[in-house]
Amino acid sequence: MIRINENYLKLKASYLFADIAKRVNAYTAANPDKPLIRLGIGDVTEPLPEVCVKALHEGADELAKRETFRGYGPEQGYAFLREAIAQGEYATRGCTIAPDEIFVSDGAKCDSANIQEIFAEEGLKLAIPDPVYPVYIDTNVMAGRTGANVGGRYEGVTYLECTPENNYVPAIPSEPTDLIYLCFPNNPTGAVATREQLTAWVEYAKANQAIILYDVAYVAFIRDESIPHSIYEIPGADEVAIELRSFSKTAGFTGTRCAYTVIPKKLQAYDSTGKAHSLHSMWNRRHTTKFNGVSYPVQKAAAAIYTPEGQAQVKALSDFYLENAALIRTAMQDLGLSCVGGDNAPYIWINTGRDSWEFFDLLLNKAGVVCTPGAGFGKCGEGHVRISAFNSRANVENALKRIAEALA
Amino acid sequence: MIRINENYLKLKASYLFADIAKRVNAYTAANPDKPLIRLGIGDVTEPLPEVCVKALHEGADELAKRETFRGYGPEQGYAFLREAIAQGEYATRGCTIAPDEIFVSDGAKCDSANIQEIFAEEGLKLAIPDPVYPVYIDTNVMAGRTGANVGGRYEGVTYLECTPENNYVPAIPSEPTDLIYLCFPNNPTGAVATREQLTAWVEYAKANQAIILYDVAYVAFIRDESIPHSIYEIPGADEVAIELRSFSKTAGFTGTRCAYTVIPKKLQAYDSTGKAHSLHSMWNRRHTTKFNGVSYPVQKAAAAIYTPEGQAQVKALSDFYLENAALIRTAMQDLGLSCVGGDNAPYIWINTGRDSWEFFDLLLNKAGVVCTPGAGFGKCGEGHVRISAFNSRANVENALKRIAEALA
Repeated sequence: MIRINENYLKLKASYLFADIAKRVNAYTAANPDKPLIRLGIGDVTEPLPEVCVKALHEGADELAKRETFRGYGPEQGYAFLREAIAQGEYATRGCTIAPDEIFVSDGAKCDSANIQEIFAEEGLKLAIPDPVYPVYIDTNVMAGRTGANVGGRYEGVTYLECTPENNYVPAIPSEPTDLIYLCFPNNPTGAVATREQLTAWVEYAKANQAIILYDVAYVAFIRDESIPHSIYEIPGADEVAIELRSFSKTAGFTGTRCAYTVIPKKLQAYDSTGKAHSLHSMWNRRHTTKFNGVSYPVQKAAAAIYTPEGQAQVKALSDFYLENAALIRTAMQDLGLSCVGGDNAPYIWINTGRDSWEFFDLLLNKAGVVCTPGAGFGKCGEGHVRISAFNSRANVENALKRIAEALA
Repeated sequence: MIRINENYLKLKASYLFADIAKRVNAYTAANPDKPLIRLGIGDVTEPLPEVCVKALHEGADELAKRETFRGYGPEQGYAFLREAIAQGEYATRGCTIAPDEIFVSDGAKCDSANIQEIFAEEGLKLAIPDPVYPVYIDTNVMAGRTGANVGGRYEGVTYLECTPENNYVPAIPSEPTDLIYLCFPNNPTGAVATREQLTAWVEYAKANQAIILYDVAYVAFIRDESIPHSIYEIPGADEVAIELRSFSKTAGFTGTRCAYTVIPKKLQAYDSTGKAHSLHSMWNRRHTTKFNGVSYPVQKAAAAIYTPEGQAQVKALSDFYLENAALIRTAMQDLGLSCVGGDNAPYIWINTGRDSWEFFDLLLNKAGVVCTPGAGFGKCGEGHVRISAFNSRANVENALKRIAEALA
């Protein structure tokens, strides 16, 4: 008799987006003449950079001719893209990352979901932020690394609480953990970690022979040059950290699909006899066994952002969203609401001082604006909402005007 | 201390393609003036169909404009593609498969690798063909469903032997198994299963409450209309079978990347209390948690093959490779070698009557032709080689001439 993976039964269903949809539908049914503005979604709205569109066309044309046709590419990504990333993202920041330490994939969601497979299932101590991007925890629940969900939290997980008290950058745990998820600039809070804070995490990981999974999907929004763009800017991080990145937010690739994961060759993990094994080799085995590479025209489009023209275009794109973010942040502060994010991130995390669904309902029903209730991202999200800068300027300005009137 | 997934240590490294490369390099170093012809690779060589190229261009243009830009799509694939597949692949064959039973992905390799995650890790009895596409077994080894590799086979697996005696279609096991991998038209053998044979498998699966993973990546090459194109042509299969398909070989998408998996809503598996659970719901949970959808222009390109023009173009593509296959098959038979495949598949599986590496070396050194030694696909591959029809007509004709001279 075929048996299921019973770990799936532990998964707490998230009704966050279904609940939002239900309330939004009720509002639009009751207010057919009042158009909604959605500032809840973590998805880009502006067109793909011209260099990427041009590269997609060129890639399609190459596939159309026998002489330039491309079949299976390297599972790890084409050398032209891995080299462009190593140079454009790492060498320029003083980090020594070799092209063959970069694994190209179709999404940071997949990578952050799949990476846990190469680690032990039993006895691994997880450290996961709260609030959090749900994929980090759900994929570990599916793999059986947690206990039951009790009161909204899974047993056996060390939750890294991000609160107003620590300015949404979690403290180092007092106990040892093995696999640590960190994300800066953060989704959902928009908080960033300083060099000193990241250094402390790297030292903690080294002291505990732990691995940090560092998600920098929002790196393109960092404007404060003192903030590390990569964890590999911290000395020794290449012995303890895997870095996850994506073209989704950097270049508007959410529908085009390209990302990458950096696994330095120095990274090690241990078997039950204490023998060290290369994580680079293990991930290479996983990646080549279970993945067949990213679409060729898409890889060409991703590489195009590393030309001078491409760099200017992606900078203009993140500048645009950051201008939206600054407007939102200023407007919230003018309303007397404390918030974080929006300066080095496309998200503004607002401490509403009340129940997060109550504030959501208020913005929806009085302003016709949709945000995301923080409670949907974890216990520490309670009392907060996330507002996203991904929208047109006109929509952002209009939404802020409406919010100001509603909260007046 | 961070611990590895020790199941990876059980994986037997495959040196098949590395060994081939080593021998090929030695040959080319010694014979710089004799150009090789490669008939070993399972990758397409002809350009993408024109309808697909046109759709890729249109998709790129849509991404270039704010009004038509697409961000995150549905993880399961766009409705336009799922509907086109349901109609074009299933309704036309008399199978009732709903669009929302189709999950679009970036590759059948990923799907066949990932699907095992929703099943139990312990106590599951696997039935896996020999010879075999290595992904089926390696991913189960990684998940801990097998014992050690002893003499080239993993303990705890029921190997379905495909031999000259059963014409390379394995017999139903005499004992119950739970998760059964089948692939027809087969890679590497090119063998196909008749309606009667598939019916017996479906009945066996029903009797044992087992699930069949049916890989039909090579469906486009079936020309014998009596051969089922889908397992869902067999009554009751929608209660016991998951079907894996791809655009890779159908439309030359090995570098473009699009595939799909069909999970009928009737499919169930059981928890340890005997309670039934929907595999459709479980896979939907897995797919939405760990995957973010296929690139939009690529989905457009895949859907384009379901227009009348597209159907003619993909038919012409598979016809071309099948003409190559027929030439190869006839040439082998003329040389007195018995073989299977090549009539409804792009692979010809040749029973060489000698050691498969010995035959490989003979073709390489005497004919300058590269094939794939069957031993690389499993114990039952010994004595065989796979020749692939994926090449230009001129190369195939030239290779066959050289082989005939070498074996004369």
